[in-house]
Amino acid sequence: MPTTVPAMTTAGPNKPFERGTVTRRDPKPHDVVIDIRYAGICHSDIHQARDEWGEGIYPMVPGHEIAGVVSAVGDDVTRYAVGDTVGVGCFVDSCRECENCRAGEEQYCLEGEVQTYNAKEYDGEPTYGGYSTQIVVDENYVLLIPDGVELDVAAPLLCAGITLYSPLHHWGAGPGKKVAIVGMGGLGHMGVKIAAAMGAEVTVLSRTLSKEQDGKRLGAAHYYATEDESTFTELAGSFDLIVNTVAAVIPVDDYLGLLKLDGSMVNVGVPEEKLSYHGFSLVAGRKSLSGSKIGGIRETQEMLDFCAEHGLGADIETISCDQVDEAWERVVRGDVRYRFVIDTATFG
Amino acid sequence: MPTTVPAMTTAGPNKPFERGTVTRRDPKPHDVVIDIRYAGICHSDIHQARDEWGEGIYPMVPGHEIAGVVSAVGDDVTRYAVGDTVGVGCFVDSCRECENCRAGEEQYCLEGEVQTYNAKEYDGEPTYGGYSTQIVVDENYVLLIPDGVELDVAAPLLCAGITLYSPLHHWGAGPGKKVAIVGMGGLGHMGVKIAAAMGAEVTVLSRTLSKEQDGKRLGAAHYYATEDESTFTELAGSFDLIVNTVAAVIPVDDYLGLLKLDGSMVNVGVPEEKLSYHGFSLVAGRKSLSGSKIGGIRETQEMLDFCAEHGLGADIETISCDQVDEAWERVVRGDVRYRFVIDTATFG
Repeated sequence: MPTTVPAMTTAGPNKPFERGTVTRRDPKPHDVVIDIRYAGICHSDIHQARDEWGEGIYPMVPGHEIAGVVSAVGDDVTRYAVGDTVGVGCFVDSCRECENCRAGEEQYCLEGEVQTYNAKEYDGEPTYGGYSTQIVVDENYVLLIPDGVELDVAAPLLCAGITLYSPLHHWGAGPGKKVAIVGMGGLGHMGVKIAAAMGAEVTVLSRTLSKEQDGKRLGAAHYYATEDESTFTELAGSFDLIVNTVAAVIPVDDYLGLLKLDGSMVNVGVPEEKLSYHGFSLVAGRKSLSGSKIGGIRETQEMLDFCAEHGLGADIETISCDQVDEAWERVVRGDVRYRFVIDTATFG
Repeated sequence: MPTTVPAMTTAGPNKPFERGTVTRRDPKPHDVVIDIRYAGICHSDIHQARDEWGEGIYPMVPGHEIAGVVSAVGDDVTRYAVGDTVGVGCFVDSCRECENCRAGEEQYCLEGEVQTYNAKEYDGEPTYGGYSTQIVVDENYVLLIPDGVELDVAAPLLCAGITLYSPLHHWGAGPGKKVAIVGMGGLGHMGVKIAAAMGAEVTVLSRTLSKEQDGKRLGAAHYYATEDESTFTELAGSFDLIVNTVAAVIPVDDYLGLLKLDGSMVNVGVPEEKLSYHGFSLVAGRKSLSGSKIGGIRETQEMLDFCAEHGLGADIETISCDQVDEAWERVVRGDVRYRFVIDTATFG
C-alpha cells in the first residue's frame, strides 16, 4: 500500500512552504525504501520551485541531495539491506538502454533521465524529492554512503559533490595540475576540497576576497578576487583546468586567457543568458570550453568512496523544516557557508 | 652575401601586386636555401595584405604554403641536403625554449613564433613569404616533402593540410568515429580527404549542396546543406567531432546539438565577431567547443608522411604569378576548387 509521509510542499511559484504530505509508492521488487535523515538545499531547487526553468509541477517537494537509512527493501533487491546508509541524487531512473545509460552516464540519458522531483516517472507518476521523511527509489539509482562520512555532511555530496567531482576527474585534476575553481559557494567549496584531495594545486577565483580564509582552510593554495582586473593579467596562462560554478554571465575570453596550452574551462553553472567568446581565445592555445552535468551512478559511488577515504563532506548549516523559506532567501543572497541541510527529525 | 630574388609584392592594403624583388639573407650555419617551386594562396594572405588583422608590414610578400627544392645549405645543416624536396609552412622560427616549443607545439610558442611573412625575425628583420622564387629558413622549421606527393599539390598541405590534420589527429578521428567537416573550401576539402583517410565516417556540412559530388569524390560518406534547417534535426546527436572551417558567425548551439556525448566542435576558422552559445548546449552531453591552430613542426612532418602514405594532396588550380590579384578576388568569392597555387616558373 502506498504510504503518506510528511513533506515540505510549495503550491506554486513564490508560494511559501507548508508542512504537508506526499504519497510514496509501495516498494516494487527492486525498490529501496529510505528514511530520509537529511536533505540538502540546492540553488536549482529554488529555480525549479519558482518556475524559472520552464513549467513546474505543483505541489512541489524539492530536494535532490538526500541522505538516509534503508528501512525496507523490495523482494528482489540485492544491493542494499535494511540499516544501510544511503543517498539519492538528482535522478531516480533512466531508460537503461541508450548508449549513454549503457556507458554508465545515466545523467545524459538520451530518453531523459527521471529527475528526483518536479518530473514524471516513465509511468507518468510525478516525482517528489527529499524535503520529506521518506522516499522510495529503485536500487540501481541508490548510492551507498560509506562509513566515515556523516549523513548530514554527506547529503550535499549527492549533487554539489558529484557536480564538481565529475569534471575534476574527467579532465584529470591531480598532482602537477593547476586547477582554478570559479565561485566559492555550495558547489565551489566542494570543488576546492575535492580538487585539493586529488592532489591538484588549487586556486579560488571569487568575486571578492571575503571567503579567502575559508578557501585556504578547505585546501586552496591561492585565492584571487575577480573584481580586481590585475588577477587576469597576473594569472594569464596559468591553469590546466578551470571549473566555473558561477551561473552568471562572465567575460569568457578573460577566463580563457588564464588557461595554458590545451587547457579547459568547464562550466557547471549555467546562466539563463547566452555567453559570448572570441574564436581566437580558443584557437590560441588549443583551449576548450566545456560543460558538465552531475555524474552517473557509478561515478557518484566512486565520488562517495573518495570522500570517505579523504574524510570529505560539505560545510553545512543545519536547519529545521520550518526554516526552508528563510534559508532560500539566504541562498539567493549568497549568505550560506556553504550548504543548508534540512534535518528531517524536525518534521516531528 | 644576401641575394635579391623575384617576388610578388604589394605596397599596401588594397594595392595590386607587382613583380618586384625581395632580399634573402646569406645562409647562416643552420639555414637551408630553398628554390620555391609552388606557393599556395591562403585566405589569410588576403586578410593580412589587406590589413584586416592589425598592422601589416609593407611591402608585403605573402605566402606560407611553400614547396620547393633545397639549393644550398649552411655549414652545420644536418637534416637536409641539396636536391631534397621540402616545404615551409606558417612559421620560420620560434623561441625554442618555452614549454610549448619544448613540447613540439611551436605554433603556440609563448614568445610568439615568427610568421613566415608579415612579421619580424627575433633580430628585427622583416619576413617575406612564398610568392617568390627563393626563401632561406632554419633547418628546424623546414619540412621534408616525401616521395609520392607532387610539389604543386603538396604546397597547400603546409597550411590547409596541417590545419585540418592536427585537430583530426588530436581529437581522435579514426575508425568508428563520425566526423563532420563544416565548410567545403580550401581547408574543408583537405579535412574531408584526411578524415576519410584516417578511417572516420565523414559528413560534409556545407551551406548548399553545390559541391556534393566533389565532397563524395574526396571521401565524404554524407553531404548535408546547412541552409536546410532539417539538417539540424536529422543529424542531432550524431557526431563525435565537428571541425568548423568557416570563418563566419554560425549558430553555435545548433552545431553543438549535432554532437554526441563527449563530442567536440573544433574551430579552425575564426570570424572577426564574437560567437555566442548557451551554457546548456555544453552541459547537456559534456560537450566541448575548442580551437586549433595549424600544427607543430613534428606534427606537420607526420601529416606530410601521412599524406604521402595515402596519396593525398590538395585539389589545386595552378596560376602564374601575374594572376594573383585575380585569384584573390576569386578566393574572396569562394570561387576556387579548392586551392590556388602559384607556379614560380612563371616568374621567368
